[in-house]
Amino acid sequence: MRAVDIIQKKKEGRAHTKEEIDFLIKGLMDGTVEDYQMSSWLMAVYFQGLNEDETVYMTEAFINSGEILDFSDISNTVADKHSTGGVGDKVTIVLIPLLAALGVKCAKLSGRGLGYTGGTVDKLESIPNFKCQLKDEDFRSQIKTIGAAISAQTPNLTPADGKIYALRDVTATVDNKSLICASVVSKKIASGANIIVLDVKYGSGAFIKTKEEARSLADLMIKIGAKLNRKIEAVISSMEQPLGTHIGNSLEIIESIEFLKGNHNKDLYEIVLEIAGRTLILANIAKDFNEAKNLIDEALKSGTALQKLKEIIEAQGGNSDCTENYSLFNVGKNKVEIKAQNEGYVSKLDALNIAKACKLLGAGRDKKSDSIDFGAGCILNKKTGDKVQKDELLCILYFNDVKKDRINEAVQYAQKAFEYSVSKPEIQSVLYK
Amino acid sequence: MRAVDIIQKKKEGRAHTKEEIDFLIKGLMDGTVEDYQMSSWLMAVYFQGLNEDETVYMTEAFINSGEILDFSDISNTVADKHSTGGVGDKVTIVLIPLLAALGVKCAKLSGRGLGYTGGTVDKLESIPNFKCQLKDEDFRSQIKTIGAAISAQTPNLTPADGKIYALRDVTATVDNKSLICASVVSKKIASGANIIVLDVKYGSGAFIKTKEEARSLADLMIKIGAKLNRKIEAVISSMEQPLGTHIGNSLEIIESIEFLKGNHNKDLYEIVLEIAGRTLILANIAKDFNEAKNLIDEALKSGTALQKLKEIIEAQGGNSDCTENYSLFNVGKNKVEIKAQNEGYVSKLDALNIAKACKLLGAGRDKKSDSIDFGAGCILNKKTGDKVQKDELLCILYFNDVKKDRINEAVQYAQKAFEYSVSKPEIQSVLYK
Repeated sequence: MRAVDIIQKKKEGRAHTKEEIDFLIKGLMDGTVEDYQMSSWLMAVYFQGLNEDETVYMTEAFINSGEILDFSDISNTVADKHSTGGVGDKVTIVLIPLLAALGVKCAKLSGRGLGYTGGTVDKLESIPNFKCQLKDEDFRSQIKTIGAAISAQTPNLTPADGKIYALRDVTATVDNKSLICASVVSKKIASGANIIVLDVKYGSGAFIKTKEEARSLADLMIKIGAKLNRKIEAVISSMEQPLGTHIGNSLEIIESIEFLKGNHNKDLYEIVLEIAGRTLILANIAKDFNEAKNLIDEALKSGTALQKLKEIIEAQGGNSDCTENYSLFNVGKNKVEIKAQNEGYVSKLDALNIAKACKLLGAGRDKKSDSIDFGAGCILNKKTGDKVQKDELLCILYFNDVKKDRINEAVQYAQKAFEYSVSKPEIQSVLYK
Repeated sequence: MRAVDIIQKKKEGRAHTKEEIDFLIKGLMDGTVEDYQMSSWLMAVYFQGLNEDETVYMTEAFINSGEILDFSDISNTVADKHSTGGVGDKVTIVLIPLLAALGVKCAKLSGRGLGYTGGTVDKLESIPNFKCQLKDEDFRSQIKTIGAAISAQTPNLTPADGKIYALRDVTATVDNKSLICASVVSKKIASGANIIVLDVKYGSGAFIKTKEEARSLADLMIKIGAKLNRKIEAVISSMEQPLGTHIGNSLEIIESIEFLKGNHNKDLYEIVLEIAGRTLILANIAKDFNEAKNLIDEALKSGTALQKLKEIIEAQGGNSDCTENYSLFNVGKNKVEIKAQNEGYVSKLDALNIAKACKLLGAGRDKKSDSIDFGAGCILNKKTGDKVQKDELLCILYFNDVKKDRINEAVQYAQKAFEYSVSKPEIQSVLYK
């Protein structure tokens, strides 16, 4: 078998055997297949696609390229959740303590962010002293005792995916459904979950731009999961405007704490309810969605979910006083208020432009080695559908030490993010069912 | 400018600017663009193509990546010829002494072969002591004194093409018209020729399979040449069956010598006449094709072309006695005669199968480091259209020390190369006009 023949086959649009996929992935890891052959194959895959069988082979090859976690000694229903990523997406931070409070074991491995704002790990690290680099044994024992732990992904899981993702990132081959599917599903399976709920986001602030593409990706991930004997459910949600009201690392933690205290933003509540509800049903804790909703509302109202967050923070070395005293967070010492330039209704609030503003202020990174300012971000005062007067507050940008021209550029992005209409726009649910 | 954005642009089917192409090619050479980015871009080019402007930019970038030869101090009509390659293609070996005998200066840089049989350099090296690694000054002075020199390509010319070709070869991205065009035309221009005649071959034994593709490639090369102010003409010829009667390194030199002695195979004569004729007209030595044909026939008949070959051989250190004494060549000491299995007409003589047989006997190489047996090859006794009796001789395979199973496999390929029909097949000219 030769890599060049496998590339040729895909170039011609023919389907690979399991042996061919294994040859490529193993070869990439042991150096017998070169990076430049893999990247050429990835581009051929972009044009010719992979069928379901090939996607299963890829997923399996990724899983088998590294360590596979097993929590069957702790519980046979260990849940995990994955979001394809978006602006202001703090669902994980709310969901994990909520589910753990309701008795679902959560083994959550999260990533750092590349792009506009931080990833879940970055956000959590804005909690004073919070540690995300957990040792295997600490991760396990915390799941056993507290019911949940959130750790940074180790390079030992699905290393082949890590290597291929790095290649895709610099060769313009990220946007292929099958490659995304294999990457996400393999990581979830290798990290030991048997109940997996995926949040597939589409819109301006997501890398998937349309509902239809999101739908198609979600369907594929469910199918591939089923072929690999995992219960996977998928929620499809809009990322046209940022999720919730706070964007930026510290600010998103603060909004998450407020959420657990019962101060719900409607969109965020809808998504959390949907994902948590489905998980409770899959875990046989609730028999239907109504019962799940009652359990969730009770956990929020009674404060048990907030209490669980505090336990997680303390178990991972953080200072849980921050849940009561927000001055313990780094929140940008400088702010700029963005005012409405027109009177009317907010007809659009573009997530990507808000994200670009936050990035300019220091909330995100381009390269792994870049540093993040946890204090940079934005709090939205108006969202799509809200009525505004001219000069009324739309949002506030927060930042620390940023050069004047970057601030000006951020302000322009924030202003450009808002569009207006004379009549009230029709508001659609953040969820697509 | 970032490589990933350039790849993305081509992936989306958009055209590049000259700056973008230069960025890629310079980046590849100085290491700021990675091989895996280039190979991914090459695959995107396979699917989305390059337009004529982009092909010109590529050609120029290749030329400018290395040394550019200049023979304007010797003559302002220096000719070069290029063949896209085929089985039994010894046109260069006949053509260069013929043209030089008629007063056309020929600065010929040739390659070694990868594939079924050797390249022109390999074939020439089967002449005892013949040297193809000429120093720059020796190459020049030989052109000045004798009128022609044939040297191995140096890596100093179009090194970017060399690097990209090596990548294309192992990433299944060889078969793109624009990439082939930029590769061929840049090399011819960098090697200092201003009269360029291209022999574009199609069919079983060529990497271009159809007449239409050959036509389209030829048209593109002529256009790109014109945009770069070079007189390029192209001949399109069939490579369904091997060219001439001899295949293999020493054997092809012997056939070339016989040709110059006036023992012409018809197909080979047609192509040589066409290419030499066009060159003589471009060089203003003949005013039309009739005059060119008379000059050519006279040079063959009078022996001046053969004499010129002897001069070239001697100038390059070889023993020109070989033109009279073929025992000075390494010709396989063993032979197998292939006999007709049917009675009738040869309806097809498949070039690729003959090539595979020769390769198995040692006539070609897979990797640069593989050695070639100059003595391996095949002499055809019958060609397409010839009448055969059952058990009549079709061809003879020549070889030295080859394992039994390889010989058996070679015999099978040679037998499979011949197909038969009851009625005489229509014979088409080797040239397509």
